Amino acid sequence: MSLDPAIADRLKRTADGLVPVIAQQYDTGEVLMLAWMNDEALARTLSTGRATYWSRSRQEMWAKGDTSGHVQWVKDARLDCDGDTILLQVDQVGAACHTGDRTCFDAAVLPLAGGTSA
Amino acid sequence: MSLDPAIADRLKRTADGLVPVIAQQYDTGEVLMLAWMNDEALARTLSTGRATYWSRSRQEMWAKGDTSGHVQWVKDARLDCDGDTILLQVDQVGAACHTGDRTCFDAAVLPLAGGTSA
Repeated sequence: MSLDPAIADRLKRTADGLVPVIAQQYDTGEVLMLAWMNDEALARTLSTGRATYWSRSRQEMWAKGDTSGHVQWVKDARLDCDGDTILLQVDQVGAACHTGDRTCFDAAVLPLAGGTSA
Repeated sequence: MSLDPAIADRLKRTADGLVPVIAQQYDTGEVLMLAWMNDEALARTLSTGRATYWSRSRQEMWAKGDTSGHVQWVKDARLDCDGDTILLQVDQVGAACHTGDRTCFDAAVLPLAGGTSA
Protein backbone atom coordinates (compact mmCIF):
# COMPACT_ATOMS: atom_id res chain seq x y z
CA MET A 1 0.00 0.00 0.00
CA SER A 2 1.48 3.35 -0.96
CA LEU A 3 0.93 6.76 0.55
CA ASP A 4 -0.85 9.52 -1.39
CA PRO A 5 2.03 11.46 -3.01
CA ALA A 6 0.46 14.77 -1.94
CA ILE A 7 0.88 13.66 1.69
CA ALA A 8 4.23 11.97 1.15
CA ASP A 9 5.63 15.24 -0.25
CA ARG A 10 4.78 17.07 2.96
CA LEU A 11 6.40 14.58 5.36
CA LYS A 12 9.76 15.31 6.91
CA ARG A 13 11.19 11.98 8.04
CA THR A 14 14.09 11.01 10.29
CA ALA A 15 17.21 9.53 8.67
CA ASP A 16 15.59 6.10 8.93
CA GLY A 17 12.41 7.23 7.17
CA LEU A 18 10.15 7.58 10.19
CA VAL A 19 7.84 10.21 11.67
CA PRO A 20 6.89 10.36 15.37
CA VAL A 21 3.17 9.96 16.05
CA ILE A 22 1.35 11.14 19.16
CA ALA A 23 -1.80 9.15 19.99
CA GLN A 24 -4.37 11.02 22.04
CA GLN A 25 -7.70 9.72 23.34
CA TYR A 26 -10.21 11.77 21.33
CA ASP A 27 -12.76 12.47 24.06
CA THR A 28 -10.74 12.74 27.27
CA GLY A 29 -7.63 14.37 25.79
CA GLU A 30 -5.29 11.87 27.49
CA VAL A 31 -1.97 11.51 25.68
CA LEU A 32 -1.72 7.74 25.35
CA MET A 33 1.67 7.07 23.75
CA LEU A 34 4.24 8.07 21.17
CA ALA A 35 5.10 5.67 18.37
CA TRP A 36 6.56 5.85 14.85
CA MET A 37 5.28 5.47 11.31
CA ASN A 38 6.87 5.00 7.95
CA ASP A 39 4.97 5.95 4.79
CA GLU A 40 3.28 2.58 4.50
CA ALA A 41 2.14 2.56 8.13
CA LEU A 42 0.58 6.00 7.59
CA ALA A 43 -1.10 4.85 4.37
CA ARG A 44 -2.56 1.83 6.18
CA THR A 45 -3.69 3.97 9.10
CA LEU A 46 -5.52 6.43 6.86
CA SER A 47 -7.12 3.75 4.70
CA THR A 48 -8.16 1.33 7.47
CA GLY A 49 -8.95 3.84 10.23
CA ARG A 50 -6.86 1.74 12.59
CA ALA A 51 -3.55 3.00 13.98
CA THR A 52 -0.66 1.11 12.41
CA TYR A 53 2.92 1.82 13.42
CA TRP A 54 6.47 0.83 12.58
CA SER A 55 8.19 -0.97 15.44
CA ARG A 56 11.78 0.24 15.66
CA SER A 57 12.74 -2.60 18.00
CA ARG A 58 11.18 -5.38 15.94
CA GLN A 59 11.68 -3.63 12.57
CA GLU A 60 8.20 -4.50 11.39
CA MET A 61 4.78 -3.03 10.74
CA TRP A 62 2.46 -3.29 13.66
CA ALA A 63 -1.31 -2.73 13.64
CA LYS A 64 -1.86 -1.81 17.27
CA GLY A 65 -4.02 -4.38 19.03
CA ASP A 66 -3.16 -7.32 16.76
CA THR A 67 -1.99 -9.42 19.69
CA SER A 68 -3.41 -7.50 22.69
CA GLY A 69 -6.79 -6.56 21.25
CA HIS A 70 -6.00 -2.99 22.31
CA VAL A 71 -6.91 -1.43 18.99
CA GLN A 72 -6.83 2.32 18.31
CA TRP A 73 -9.68 3.51 16.07
CA VAL A 74 -8.64 6.75 14.42
CA LYS A 75 -11.05 9.69 14.60
CA ASP A 76 -8.73 12.41 13.25
CA ALA A 77 -5.19 12.65 11.89
CA ARG A 78 -3.12 15.81 11.56
CA LEU A 79 0.33 16.83 10.45
CA ASP A 80 2.17 19.54 12.33
CA CYS A 81 3.31 22.90 10.94
CA ASP A 82 6.61 21.63 9.60
CA GLY A 83 5.47 18.15 8.57
CA ASP A 84 7.64 16.19 10.98
CA THR A 85 5.08 15.00 13.57
CA ILE A 86 1.62 13.41 13.33
CA LEU A 87 -1.15 13.74 15.91
CA LEU A 88 -3.82 11.04 15.96
CA GLN A 89 -7.08 11.39 17.84
CA VAL A 90 -8.09 7.83 18.61
CA ASP A 91 -10.58 5.75 20.50
CA GLN A 92 -8.34 3.41 22.50
CA VAL A 93 -9.72 -0.04 23.30
CA GLY A 94 -8.39 -1.12 26.70
CA ALA A 95 -4.88 -0.10 27.73
CA ALA A 96 -2.59 1.85 25.43
CA CYS A 97 0.55 0.74 27.29
CA HIS A 98 2.11 -2.71 27.07
CA THR A 99 2.40 -2.62 30.88
CA GLY A 100 -1.39 -2.64 31.15
CA ASP A 101 -1.56 1.01 32.19
CA ARG A 102 -4.12 3.14 30.41
CA THR A 103 -1.36 5.42 29.03
CA CYS A 104 2.41 5.07 28.67
CA PHE A 105 2.84 8.14 30.90
CA ASP A 106 1.09 6.86 34.01
CA ALA A 107 4.14 5.57 35.86
CA ALA A 108 7.08 7.97 36.05
CA VAL A 109 6.68 11.53 37.26
CA LEU A 110 9.81 13.70 36.97
CA PRO A 111 10.44 16.04 39.90
CA LEU A 112 10.05 19.79 39.33
CA ALA A 113 12.06 22.07 41.60
CA GLY A 114 9.98 24.61 43.51
CA GLY A 115 7.14 26.59 41.95
CA THR A 116 6.30 26.19 38.29
CA SER A 117 4.73 29.46 37.35
CA ALA A 118 5.45 33.17 37.64
CA MET B 1 23.67 22.42 34.52
CA SER B 2 23.64 18.65 34.75
CA LEU B 3 20.74 16.24 34.97
CA ASP B 4 20.07 14.19 38.12
CA PRO B 5 21.87 10.87 37.43
CA ALA B 6 18.81 8.93 38.64
CA ILE B 7 16.83 10.51 35.79
CA ALA B 8 19.66 10.37 33.26
CA ASP B 9 19.96 6.62 33.82
CA ARG B 10 16.34 6.09 32.81
CA LEU B 11 16.46 8.07 29.56
CA LYS B 12 16.69 6.28 26.22
CA ARG B 13 18.04 8.81 23.71
CA THR B 14 18.26 8.88 19.92
CA ALA B 15 21.67 8.45 18.31
CA ASP B 16 22.16 12.22 18.60
CA GLY B 17 21.38 12.22 22.33
CA LEU B 18 17.85 13.57 22.19
CA VAL B 19 14.43 12.61 23.54
CA PRO B 20 11.13 13.71 21.94
CA VAL B 21 8.92 15.85 24.18
CA ILE B 22 5.16 16.29 23.84
CA ALA B 23 3.85 19.59 25.22
CA GLN B 24 0.19 19.53 26.25
CA GLN B 25 -1.89 22.41 27.63
CA TYR B 26 -2.55 21.30 31.20
CA ASP B 27 -6.17 22.41 31.52
CA THR B 28 -7.67 21.99 28.04
CA GLY B 29 -5.70 18.88 27.02
CA GLU B 30 -4.69 20.39 23.67
CA VAL B 31 -1.51 18.84 22.27
CA LEU B 32 0.52 21.94 21.46
CA MET B 33 3.71 20.69 19.82
CA LEU B 34 6.47 18.14 19.75
CA ALA B 35 10.05 19.24 20.36
CA TRP B 36 13.33 17.68 21.52
CA MET B 37 15.49 17.81 24.64
CA ASN B 38 18.99 16.77 25.46
CA ASP B 39 19.97 16.10 29.08
CA GLU B 40 20.82 19.73 29.80
CA ALA B 41 17.55 21.02 28.36
CA LEU B 42 15.66 18.59 30.60
CA ALA B 43 17.71 19.63 33.63
CA ARG B 44 16.95 23.29 32.92
CA THR B 45 13.26 22.57 32.37
CA LEU B 46 12.94 20.73 35.69
CA SER B 47 14.91 23.30 37.66
CA THR B 48 13.40 26.47 36.17
CA GLY B 49 9.84 25.22 35.56
CA ARG B 50 10.05 26.65 32.06
CA ALA B 51 10.13 24.40 28.98
CA THR B 52 13.59 24.45 27.41
CA TYR B 53 14.33 22.48 24.26
CA TRP B 54 17.18 21.59 21.95
CA SER B 55 16.72 23.04 18.47
CA ARG B 56 17.84 20.45 15.91
CA SER B 57 17.82 23.02 13.10
CA ARG B 58 19.78 25.68 14.98
CA GLN B 59 21.76 23.20 17.11
CA GLU B 60 21.27 25.23 20.26
CA MET B 61 19.41 25.31 23.54
CA TRP B 62 16.17 27.22 23.35
CA ALA B 63 14.03 28.35 26.29
CA LYS B 64 10.65 28.58 24.60
CA GLY B 65 9.38 32.15 24.54
CA ASP B 66 12.80 33.85 24.70
CA THR B 67 12.12 35.80 21.52
CA SER B 68 8.33 35.42 21.10
CA GLY B 69 7.28 35.77 24.73
CA HIS B 70 5.33 32.53 24.26
CA VAL B 71 6.67 30.84 27.36
CA GLN B 72 5.58 27.39 28.54
CA TRP B 73 5.29 27.11 32.34
CA VAL B 74 5.60 23.47 33.30
CA LYS B 75 2.96 22.01 35.62
CA ASP B 76 3.93 18.34 35.35
CA ALA B 77 6.63 16.27 33.63
CA ARG B 78 6.52 12.53 32.99
CA LEU B 79 8.63 9.89 31.33
CA ASP B 80 6.96 7.11 29.37
CA CYS B 81 7.10 3.39 30.13
CA ASP B 82 10.32 2.76 28.23
CA GLY B 83 12.04 6.07 28.97
CA ASP B 84 12.20 7.36 25.42
CA THR B 85 9.51 10.08 25.44
CA ILE B 86 8.64 12.93 27.81
CA LEU B 87 5.18 14.43 28.32
CA LEU B 88 4.99 17.97 29.69
CA GLN B 89 1.79 19.48 31.01
CA VAL B 90 2.30 23.21 30.49
CA ASP B 91 0.56 26.53 30.70
CA GLN B 92 1.21 28.01 27.26
CA VAL B 93 1.42 31.81 27.04
CA GLY B 94 0.04 32.90 23.65
CA ALA B 95 0.60 30.71 20.61
CA ALA B 96 2.61 27.50 20.77
CA CYS B 97 3.28 27.49 17.03
CA HIS B 98 5.76 29.76 15.26
CA THR B 99 3.02 30.40 12.65
CA GLY B 100 0.92 32.14 15.29
CA ASP B 101 -1.54 29.25 15.56
CA ARG B 102 -2.44 28.11 19.05
CA THR B 103 -1.02 24.62 18.37
CA CYS B 104 1.29 23.18 15.72
CA PHE B 105 -1.50 20.80 14.67
CA ASP B 106 -4.13 23.38 13.70
CA ALA B 107 -3.40 23.56 9.99
CA ALA B 108 -3.10 20.22 8.21
CA VAL B 109 -5.78 17.55 8.51
CA LEU B 110 -4.95 14.22 6.85
CA PRO B 111 -7.85 12.52 5.03
CA LEU B 112 -9.26 9.33 6.51
CA ALA B 113 -10.93 6.92 4.09
CA GLY B 114 -14.50 6.02 5.03
CA GLY B 115 -15.62 5.21 8.55
CA THR B 116 -13.22 5.21 11.45
CA SER B 117 -14.78 2.94 14.01
CA ALA B 118 -16.28 -0.50 14.25
